[in-house]
Amino acid sequence: MKEVRGNVIVGQSGGPTAVINSSLVGVYKTAKDRGAQKIYGMLHGIQGLLEERYVDLSDHIKSNLDIELLKRTPSSYLGSCRYKLPEIHDNQEIYEKIFTILDKLEIEFFFYIGGNDSMDTIKKLSDYSILNGSKIRFMGVPKTIDNDLAATDHTPGYGSAAKYIGSVTKEVIRDGLVYDQQNVTLLEIMGRNAGWLTGAAALARDEDCEGPDMIFLPEITFDIDEFMKKIAEIHKRKKSVVVAVSEGVKIADGRYVCELTDNIDYVDAFGHRQLTGTASFLAGKISKEVGCKTRAIEFNSMQRCASHMVSRVDITEAFQVGGAAVKAAFEGETGKMIILKRVSDDPYICVTDIYDVHKVANIEKKVPREWINESGDYVTEEFLNYIRPLIQAELTPIMADGLPRHLYYDNVEKRLK
Amino acid sequence: MKEVRGNVIVGQSGGPTAVINSSLVGVYKTAKDRGAQKIYGMLHGIQGLLEERYVDLSDHIKSNLDIELLKRTPSSYLGSCRYKLPEIHDNQEIYEKIFTILDKLEIEFFFYIGGNDSMDTIKKLSDYSILNGSKIRFMGVPKTIDNDLAATDHTPGYGSAAKYIGSVTKEVIRDGLVYDQQNVTLLEIMGRNAGWLTGAAALARDEDCEGPDMIFLPEITFDIDEFMKKIAEIHKRKKSVVVAVSEGVKIADGRYVCELTDNIDYVDAFGHRQLTGTASFLAGKISKEVGCKTRAIEFNSMQRCASHMVSRVDITEAFQVGGAAVKAAFEGETGKMIILKRVSDDPYICVTDIYDVHKVANIEKKVPREWINESGDYVTEEFLNYIRPLIQAELTPIMADGLPRHLYYDNVEKRLK
Repeated sequence: MKEVRGNVIVGQSGGPTAVINSSLVGVYKTAKDRGAQKIYGMLHGIQGLLEERYVDLSDHIKSNLDIELLKRTPSSYLGSCRYKLPEIHDNQEIYEKIFTILDKLEIEFFFYIGGNDSMDTIKKLSDYSILNGSKIRFMGVPKTIDNDLAATDHTPGYGSAAKYIGSVTKEVIRDGLVYDQQNVTLLEIMGRNAGWLTGAAALARDEDCEGPDMIFLPEITFDIDEFMKKIAEIHKRKKSVVVAVSEGVKIADGRYVCELTDNIDYVDAFGHRQLTGTASFLAGKISKEVGCKTRAIEFNSMQRCASHMVSRVDITEAFQVGGAAVKAAFEGETGKMIILKRVSDDPYICVTDIYDVHKVANIEKKVPREWINESGDYVTEEFLNYIRPLIQAELTPIMADGLPRHLYYDNVEKRLK
Repeated sequence: MKEVRGNVIVGQSGGPTAVINSSLVGVYKTAKDRGAQKIYGMLHGIQGLLEERYVDLSDHIKSNLDIELLKRTPSSYLGSCRYKLPEIHDNQEIYEKIFTILDKLEIEFFFYIGGNDSMDTIKKLSDYSILNGSKIRFMGVPKTIDNDLAATDHTPGYGSAAKYIGSVTKEVIRDGLVYDQQNVTLLEIMGRNAGWLTGAAALARDEDCEGPDMIFLPEITFDIDEFMKKIAEIHKRKKSVVVAVSEGVKIADGRYVCELTDNIDYVDAFGHRQLTGTASFLAGKISKEVGCKTRAIEFNSMQRCASHMVSRVDITEAFQVGGAAVKAAFEGETGKMIILKRVSDDPYICVTDIYDVHKVANIEKKVPREWINESGDYVTEEFLNYIRPLIQAELTPIMADGLPRHLYYDNVEKRLK
């Protein structure tokens, strides 16, 4: 029997993943099935909520087809933000404002889908709520392509990005063999501080593909001279060389490799230089010094938005963590996040669990040193054993007139303008 | 009843497409089914043949599963070349050499899968053959992602590249809406002289997507000041602006936009500067002058090797042109190429026909002016009506352990080294 529950609000924060909307669907559908009255979506996360920008999700998700489309829709359906709440004692007003808005909407359950910063938000809001006797329950739903969230075995969003990277790396390696001509291809892969995504390029190595020749993660200091020596050496015995390199590799003095180029036009809204140009810089150097044809390929935003190539394991788990958060909150939990716990590698079994956000927030999980080979230019079998189950199976797009169909923003989009 | 036929040789030339191996399969399977004795594959096209590099394809394509895998394998399975035969009167020797090799292999039918240069090869070889009383028949099989081959309604390879570009453009447009922050994304799309691929970005415009805001083809002289004015204007009324631009756009004095950057490290083996950096140059300029967040995204080699996202219409037609070439040659044709003739738009009906290569070689087909809007910054409905049937339906990859499986090069690959 369906129990009647109070109102729910859900938001998305941080960089999107190809499956972040599957978590949104997991929250929405589970809350609805379990009797929630209203289910609101905050637009652009907590930042939008502060401006009272939200929608009633039932106005936008109207059918089971909408649910299936939304699962396959890239980017954060509700819009996202990069907004860090101040410490409670530094700015009580902002908390008062948030809770006034939540109370006005008669919210009883608050869900936030995001990475480290979002779990920090859940921590602060639940702390404030306890301090002030509010009954609202706050739960975090993990996501990030970067897989750098602690406590959870892996993060939803990572498996699909890894599958995309592995697949396209494989295609590009094959492409590099087309001419009878020596060439070096540099693949630039996301991950500022953690090499989980870059390491996924190794998935391309299989019975039908040699895989990349080298892989450089940000966990290991990048030695340009050593790199050039290795390239020259491989170049001597192979026609086509393919190297995967993280956008975040740094040289010994702490500078990013991409900072060594003159092409420094990109500065984001916060004044941060964008980490782009690592592959291009290295390709230029190889072209000059080794004298062969080079290509620099940035996988770019496609890593986080290629919904046409998702892992079914990943998109299913993304849904599950959303659903588990609702279940936990409805059962009384607050100030927690859902994590994934791997029970077994083979067969792959993974369950959800609950974890205190006070213990997790703001710790960046990196690739363990022992999962990188001794010479620091490839990942190990252990790394691949960890990642392989996460990329299994597919969820094909719903195609309409030749292209993947997404759930249109509708009024959500209009409100954004 | 199967008639016994002589030996066949087939080669691939020029840049690959995601479906070029479907044409190879079309030649192989049709020749085999129609009683060809040996079916050889030249490695790296005519250039490899001159070095007597070839394989017996039956040693590599051993089952129906191999055939299905090969259809879905990106890059040219046999390897490719960019090699233009000299005029017959300038260098008879090279022709004598080729025919000696062909005669040694007892070749009766010669198929060459490629673009303009490949049709030129077919023309010269068939001319030489007629002049010298050889009985070998020469047929061209069209392919190119660029769609710039004259006489044929379109080229196999184009539809899949267009589908890839349309799909990813759609995902990237959605991705650009994620933050509540003004931003401009520049998509750099292949096509040095013809805008067929860049125009395909317009496919993203549908009920669920606004499509790119502007599209710049190489057919129209690029006016940077005008461009910046338009960007500033759209930027005023829209949060997220997405512009597709051909790698080959040129300013009034004839220079490529990408030549205006300082980042000129890429020179290919022939000393040609690679056309890369157009999007990056424009993004930098916008970032400086308009002052918002910008992204430059190059679709790069994925446009020609994304076998994980092919059009079924395209991959089927790629197979058909291969089969039709064999049928025509077996019936006595030579010095011809297969073309596609569109009989009807709706329902889309397209048949193969035979065309004299003497009439086609070396004419680059561009996007007609009337398929580009008056202000030169978008394609028209006519353009979309032309392209839409070519991207219909899918042929999903054969997935193994989470990634697309390809037909391994096997001995072919080993011989390449």
